[in-house]
Amino acid sequence: MNPNFDTIGKQFVEQYYAVFDNKDTRSQVAVMYHPANALLTFEGQQFHGINAIAEKMKNIPIDNMFRQITTIDCQPTIDGGVLVNVIGQLKNNSEHDKVMGFSQTFVLKPADNSFFIFHDIFRLVIHNM
Amino acid sequence: MNPNFDTIGKQFVEQYYAVFDNKDTRSQVAVMYHPANALLTFEGQQFHGINAIAEKMKNIPIDNMFRQITTIDCQPTIDGGVLVNVIGQLKNNSEHDKVMGFSQTFVLKPADNSFFIFHDIFRLVIHNM
Repeated sequence: MNPNFDTIGKQFVEQYYAVFDNKDTRSQVAVMYHPANALLTFEGQQFHGINAIAEKMKNIPIDNMFRQITTIDCQPTIDGGVLVNVIGQLKNNSEHDKVMGFSQTFVLKPADNSFFIFHDIFRLVIHNM
Repeated sequence: MNPNFDTIGKQFVEQYYAVFDNKDTRSQVAVMYHPANALLTFEGQQFHGINAIAEKMKNIPIDNMFRQITTIDCQPTIDGGVLVNVIGQLKNNSEHDKVMGFSQTFVLKPADNSFFIFHDIFRLVIHNM
């Protein structure tokens, strides 16, 4: 297991959202995904591989985002990777938009001297019980 | 990859919460975790291995729970396992308790003709932006 899993996970999250939350750079987030094997489940829609993921990122109908991260939990995986779960809140950058909770789970794995996203599950969290 | 990942993940979630949500059976949930390698991060506290996890389960200060699952997202992993993220809401079984959102991420892997939990990250989701 990688002894630096916590640092790797938290630095990754910071880098990922810095790119994703700016509408001008969002589509570049695709290069962080493993080209052939990455799986993204975004609000229940499934995407496989960098091309499908890049296309999805281009089509997310949201401007710049304000994001507040509440917690980042990281665990080391047996193959030297990192499991990351992020909980937080976000809103579109117009003042009147409502705040939405979110949960995002990543699995990062080492490949070619770097870490790539192999798994990504994103969900908004809405209370209605 | 396991072609039945979605069924495996969803059946597991149903079984897990049936045991966990009843205070009389909750500690038995420990047998679903891989004895040596399971990692649990519960509201930021980390537990490693079945003994530490069983002890934690015994000490969760919550009676029976009412749980409402909103979404279960599953992805197959390269080693034949399943990544599962569950979003939902729960409350203690007294009427006046408040509803809390939660996110729980599991990684299940095959071992000894069964599936075991290798990773579990649980977080309550509270809105305060």
